[in-house]
Amino acid sequence: MISRSLAADLPARAGEHVRIAGWVHRLRQLKSVTFVVVRDRSGLAQVVLPGAETALPTEESVVEVAGLVSANPRAPGGAEIVRPVITPLGEPARRPVFDLYRPTVAASLPTVLDNAPLALRHPRLRARFEVASAGVAGFRSTLDELGFTETHTPKIVGSATESGANVFGIDYFGRRAYLAQSPQFFKQALVGVFERVYEVGPVFRAEPHDTTRHLAQYTSLDAEIGFITDHRDVMALLRTTIAGMVEAVSVRAPAAAELLSVALPVVPEEIPAVHFAEAQELLARHTEWDPRGEPDLAPAHERWLSEWASREHGSEFLFVTGYPMAKRPFYTHPDPLRPEYSNSFDLLFRGVELVTGGQRLHRHSDYLAALDERGQEPESYVDYLDVFAGGMPPHGGFAIGLERWTARMLGLANIRETTLFPRDLHRLRP
Amino acid sequence: MISRSLAADLPARAGEHVRIAGWVHRLRQLKSVTFVVVRDRSGLAQVVLPGAETALPTEESVVEVAGLVSANPRAPGGAEIVRPVITPLGEPARRPVFDLYRPTVAASLPTVLDNAPLALRHPRLRARFEVASAGVAGFRSTLDELGFTETHTPKIVGSATESGANVFGIDYFGRRAYLAQSPQFFKQALVGVFERVYEVGPVFRAEPHDTTRHLAQYTSLDAEIGFITDHRDVMALLRTTIAGMVEAVSVRAPAAAELLSVALPVVPEEIPAVHFAEAQELLARHTEWDPRGEPDLAPAHERWLSEWASREHGSEFLFVTGYPMAKRPFYTHPDPLRPEYSNSFDLLFRGVELVTGGQRLHRHSDYLAALDERGQEPESYVDYLDVFAGGMPPHGGFAIGLERWTARMLGLANIRETTLFPRDLHRLRP
Repeated sequence: MISRSLAADLPARAGEHVRIAGWVHRLRQLKSVTFVVVRDRSGLAQVVLPGAETALPTEESVVEVAGLVSANPRAPGGAEIVRPVITPLGEPARRPVFDLYRPTVAASLPTVLDNAPLALRHPRLRARFEVASAGVAGFRSTLDELGFTETHTPKIVGSATESGANVFGIDYFGRRAYLAQSPQFFKQALVGVFERVYEVGPVFRAEPHDTTRHLAQYTSLDAEIGFITDHRDVMALLRTTIAGMVEAVSVRAPAAAELLSVALPVVPEEIPAVHFAEAQELLARHTEWDPRGEPDLAPAHERWLSEWASREHGSEFLFVTGYPMAKRPFYTHPDPLRPEYSNSFDLLFRGVELVTGGQRLHRHSDYLAALDERGQEPESYVDYLDVFAGGMPPHGGFAIGLERWTARMLGLANIRETTLFPRDLHRLRP
Repeated sequence: MISRSLAADLPARAGEHVRIAGWVHRLRQLKSVTFVVVRDRSGLAQVVLPGAETALPTEESVVEVAGLVSANPRAPGGAEIVRPVITPLGEPARRPVFDLYRPTVAASLPTVLDNAPLALRHPRLRARFEVASAGVAGFRSTLDELGFTETHTPKIVGSATESGANVFGIDYFGRRAYLAQSPQFFKQALVGVFERVYEVGPVFRAEPHDTTRHLAQYTSLDAEIGFITDHRDVMALLRTTIAGMVEAVSVRAPAAAELLSVALPVVPEEIPAVHFAEAQELLARHTEWDPRGEPDLAPAHERWLSEWASREHGSEFLFVTGYPMAKRPFYTHPDPLRPEYSNSFDLLFRGVELVTGGQRLHRHSDYLAALDERGQEPESYVDYLDVFAGGMPPHGGFAIGLERWTARMLGLANIRETTLFPRDLHRLRP
């Protein structure tokens, strides 16, 4: 038997007998000819039957097609299969909820999500996840080059202490346990072991609000590095990582990037940075910002700052550094010169906070003081505190939300659009 | 400031002034000289101080050392740092629970696990996870080469239907949900989208027994492929994948493999395979096996078969194919010629079942019949069944347990030894 060819191989095989296999993407019956377009993982192949065939498989049925490749400049890709023998590889498929062959997706987001396993077959929906997958590969290969070790840490934890709120409870053999909101504590501990670690994995937030930016589960790209001077080393590492992710999209998913007309961002050698205090001044001067309000940036402020960076620095990326300590978790390292501010940062990308990171405390006594200041008991953090009592270098890290990154790359407003099977307040299936 | 060098760089830098940083691995104070061995992610560096120093950092404290590299054939690696200036990068570390500098681990497994963040700093413990990390990289790169797409699927699912037992329940915004026991249903659905998918991620089993082979969370390396003829295509893919994982250990983690004297297995071009019925006959002839008992293989039988494969075929790997349908999940494809047996397999490696896989049903009507035969309601599987009604190719896949694979590679008996922070019936911390 001739081994299987892919649709994308056909142009190079004109004049040869081949066998392809895939889904019937589209049927077009004209008076004197029938076109069967077959979709496989590489793309589309046009199959031509003489006359108006009657016994045709339905769209989305799986078929094998044997036939002769014929060059035809009017066929997609410049070649088609003629004199075909079409064999079904399963039962006729049920009609999809919306036409998968149309160039754009003719269905609402809820319809797409409710029918995700079939809807994702649409080439434009599928391509989003090829971009995501390429980005993750770029994240890993960049960090691998820099001597990082990949880790896999527990998603079930015994205490909900990291932030206290928005955790999912589990019945763990009759005991109370929780789903991990991040690998934060573990990745810090593992800096003590490997110096440089990363993890790609699910994190869980019992997010009680319905927003376009939050899900109950998302994929976090976490990195942590030891022996830094301060958060600026972490920012430099993040810049390199993001550049590697962007490059990986063009190298590993060129077809998907082209189909979606992805505008790949240019990652500046040095991403512009603005201190939180400076950002406040800018916002007070140019927007409705009330400087006496919460010392935090609302989504509208992030959008304004992002536009400002684009205007002033020609950059789609902007670091906001020095967030007030009051707004950051207790393990955040303060700015030694202005201790009310922190050695932490957010990275804004196209109007949205994409990454949070910074330098962490590394001295045991600093942790005790930080917990004390926040009125928290060290007893709740025994294992975590042991790590620092055992000797830890200055370190820091960051976490990138994969779905958010992909959505920003593709100009999509809702991170559900870049999640295969989203989980939220209302959605627990498919 | 001189940029940081790694311990492993020193031999090439004799005569130069360098700066290293790391943990004080060991202090040795002799009458006329003091040795400070510094550990970093690359290895160990010996630092020599004249005379018996008194103001020395404790072991496991983090230090920076500036000094001159001097060739010395008696020093580890053939070079050491002389005329050092040692600067602490934090507070003196607390004494570890056991000496991390001794060549072997002088602590029991419970002590190691209870103190994992610090215990894992022992070079021999740390090296295990470098082997694991390399194996995962090999899994991915092998499948990437073959056109697979990486996916990230929900770990929170609405029904516990896949196996029914041993699931963890979650309180999901006031509703009942469960932790996913595998990405099985999702990866099959995604064959309909990408044809070839893999996922590396946590899976959860509420395993109520204390064994050396089971954990509440482990890392599953899942792959699924469409357009196969039958399970033998999946076995060929698995063979290639395992070979890629083994090779990655020698390429990506040579130092760890050497430190642990890892005996890398030879993966035969064709892994020997024995049918379940044949295996039963062998066991009946040569062991205490009672053929009237359960149609399944106990761990002792797997060990015997593994030894048999080594003796008869010179292979550390053995496929056992054709497990009885009664012992496999409802989505398993039967053997068309002997429908009481399945088109499924286990891969045994060094006495233990390492992988389970096989061909799945792909016709909607076959699913309905399979559920009916097992007395299960199709209503519980609406989303899953929709996938097959929508047109699916013949497909199959496998799942490799990462911790088990690493344990077998390293000759370790308990998978807790190859899990950073294990979770089991009793253990929910650190």
